[in-house]
Amino acid sequence: MRVLSGIQPSGSLHLGNFFGMMNKMIAHQEQQDLFCFIANYHAMTSLADGKQLATGTLEAAANFIALGMDPEKSTFWVQSDVPEVQELTWILSNFTPMGLLERCHSYKDKVAQGIKPNHGLFAYPVLMTADILLFQSDLVPVGKDQKQHLEVARDIAIKFNNEYGEIFTVPEAEIDEDVATVPGLDGRKMSKSYGNTIDLFLGEKALRKQIMRIVTDPTPVEEAKNPDTCNIFQIYRLFLDGDGVASLRRRYLTPGLRYGDVKQELFETVRDFFAPYAAKRDALLADPDTVRKQLKQGAEKARAVAAKTLHKVRKKTGLVY
Amino acid sequence: MRVLSGIQPSGSLHLGNFFGMMNKMIAHQEQQDLFCFIANYHAMTSLADGKQLATGTLEAAANFIALGMDPEKSTFWVQSDVPEVQELTWILSNFTPMGLLERCHSYKDKVAQGIKPNHGLFAYPVLMTADILLFQSDLVPVGKDQKQHLEVARDIAIKFNNEYGEIFTVPEAEIDEDVATVPGLDGRKMSKSYGNTIDLFLGEKALRKQIMRIVTDPTPVEEAKNPDTCNIFQIYRLFLDGDGVASLRRRYLTPGLRYGDVKQELFETVRDFFAPYAAKRDALLADPDTVRKQLKQGAEKARAVAAKTLHKVRKKTGLVY
Repeated sequence: MRVLSGIQPSGSLHLGNFFGMMNKMIAHQEQQDLFCFIANYHAMTSLADGKQLATGTLEAAANFIALGMDPEKSTFWVQSDVPEVQELTWILSNFTPMGLLERCHSYKDKVAQGIKPNHGLFAYPVLMTADILLFQSDLVPVGKDQKQHLEVARDIAIKFNNEYGEIFTVPEAEIDEDVATVPGLDGRKMSKSYGNTIDLFLGEKALRKQIMRIVTDPTPVEEAKNPDTCNIFQIYRLFLDGDGVASLRRRYLTPGLRYGDVKQELFETVRDFFAPYAAKRDALLADPDTVRKQLKQGAEKARAVAAKTLHKVRKKTGLVY
Repeated sequence: MRVLSGIQPSGSLHLGNFFGMMNKMIAHQEQQDLFCFIANYHAMTSLADGKQLATGTLEAAANFIALGMDPEKSTFWVQSDVPEVQELTWILSNFTPMGLLERCHSYKDKVAQGIKPNHGLFAYPVLMTADILLFQSDLVPVGKDQKQHLEVARDIAIKFNNEYGEIFTVPEAEIDEDVATVPGLDGRKMSKSYGNTIDLFLGEKALRKQIMRIVTDPTPVEEAKNPDTCNIFQIYRLFLDGDGVASLRRRYLTPGLRYGDVKQELFETVRDFFAPYAAKRDALLADPDTVRKQLKQGAEKARAVAAKTLHKVRKKTGLVY
C-alpha cells in the first residue's frame, strides 16, 4: 500500500512533531511503500524569505534522515524537484469547483492568523490534491486540520475519473486522533506558536533550560503527587516502557519526590535519547552534498511514478496532440 | 523588442480572426522578436473534450504556419510543451492578492455565459501572467477584454521585483482599438458566438453559402446604393487596396448594381485569396509529424528562455537548496 506524507521544510523540531507525526511516519517505511516529500512549494504560501526556505529544506531533510528515514526503503524527495506536480495542479484546477475551495476552513483560519490572503494560500488544496493523486497514493496520514483537504482531493479524483475513466487512485485518509496528546511546557498542546516546546537538536544547555521551565503544581515535597495532572510525567512517559511508567508513577505517589529531580532526569533522558540522532544530523549537515544527492535520487524515483500518471492524464485531456 | 502572443487552439478560423489579429500578429515577426504559443492550457478552462483539444491544437498550428507564421523567424510553440510555466504560476500565486483576481471581470463574465465556475477559470490571470513573465516579454498585443489581465500581470511583476530585485520585465500592453472592425454577415462584430462568420478553409461550396447569407438592405437594383452601410462592402474592402475600394464605391453609387453579383465577386475574392493558404494548410495537416517537429523545435527555443528566468526565480525564492 502506498502511503504519502508531506512535511514542512522547517529546521527546528520539537517533541510534539517527533511523537505526534515523525516516528509514526518513518515507521511506515517498514511495512508500506512510503512516499514522503519536503513540502517547499507549500511553504511558499506563508514564507517569502528565500534563504530561510532553502536552509529549512536542507535541515528538514537532514532531520528526517537522521531520525531514521531511509531513502533506500522509502521515496524521499523535495517537492519542487518534481515540478510536474504543478502541471497536474493546473489540470485539476479545471475540475475543481470554486465552491469547494471557498468552503475550506484552513484558508480563512490562516488569513485570520495574519497570513496574507494570496492566491497561493487559497489554491493550496489543489496543489495538495495533485501531490496525492500524482503518486497514486492509497493512504494519507493527516491531522484533523487537514481532513477537509483530503475530502477535496477525493472529490476531485472522483470527478476526474468520472470524466476520463479510472485514472487516479481515490485516496483514503488516516486520521490520527492521538496527534494532540504531546503536552507542552504549560500543559497545552506542544506547538511552536504557543512557545511551549521542547526542541530536538537544541544543544545541552538550551535543552535543560527548556525542561526546567515545565509548569508544575505547588504540591510540597513531603506530600504525594498526582502523575496524571503533572506535565513532567506526561512528557516523560513518552520515553518510557510500561515498567518504566509504572515505576515513575509509584515514585509520584510516594511522598518526598522533588519536581526538580524529575526534570533533571527527564533532561538527561531526552538528551541521551536524541544524542545519536543529533550526531547523525550534524554529520549530514556538515556534508550537505550527500543529503542533496540522496534527495535527487529520491526525486528520480518519485518522478518515474509521476511520469506514468501524468502521461495518462495528458493523453486523456488532450495535451498530447 | 520581444512581443508575446497566445492563440486559441481552435481549428476553425474566420475573417474576423484573420484581419483582427492573425495577420497583424504574424507581421510582428518581421521586425520584432515574436514569441507566439498555442494556449492549450488556457483552453482547458472551458473545454473538457480531450480529442477536440488535441485536434484543435494541431489545426491551429497548421493554420498559423499556413498563413505565414515562420518558425524560423519567430518562436512558435504549444503552451504545454513548456510546462515550466506552471511552476512559475504557483510561485507567482504567492504574490497575487486574492482581491486582484476577484476584481477581474472576465471570470464573472464567463460564468455568466454558462462556463463552469472552476478554479482554473478563476486562476487563469495568474497563468497568463506566468506566460508573459516567463519569457520576459516587452509587449503584449491584447484585445480590450484582456486589458485588465495585463494590468494583473504588471502588478504581480512589480510586486515580485520589489521583493527580490529586477527579475521580470514589466510588460506593456498593445491595445488594438481596431479589433472590432470586421463586421459579420449581419453587421455585428464577426464572432463565432453570433453565428455570423465567414470562415477560412471551409471549402468552396460552404464558403459561397455563407457569403450569400450576408444581410443587405432592400434598395432596388435600379437605385444607387450606400456602400458605407452595406455589409458586403465593409467586408469586401478588407481585400482591396485604395484604388479597389474607390472603384467599388463608384459602382455602389451607380444605379444598376446587384448585391448578388457583388456577393459572387466577394466569394471568388475570398476563395482565391485563401486558396494558396488552404493548399498549404492541407499539406501540413496531411503530414502532421512535420508540424509536430516544428512545434517541438519552437518549444526548445522557448524553453531556453524560460529556463533562464526560472533559474533566477527559483534561486531567489529558495527552491534551490
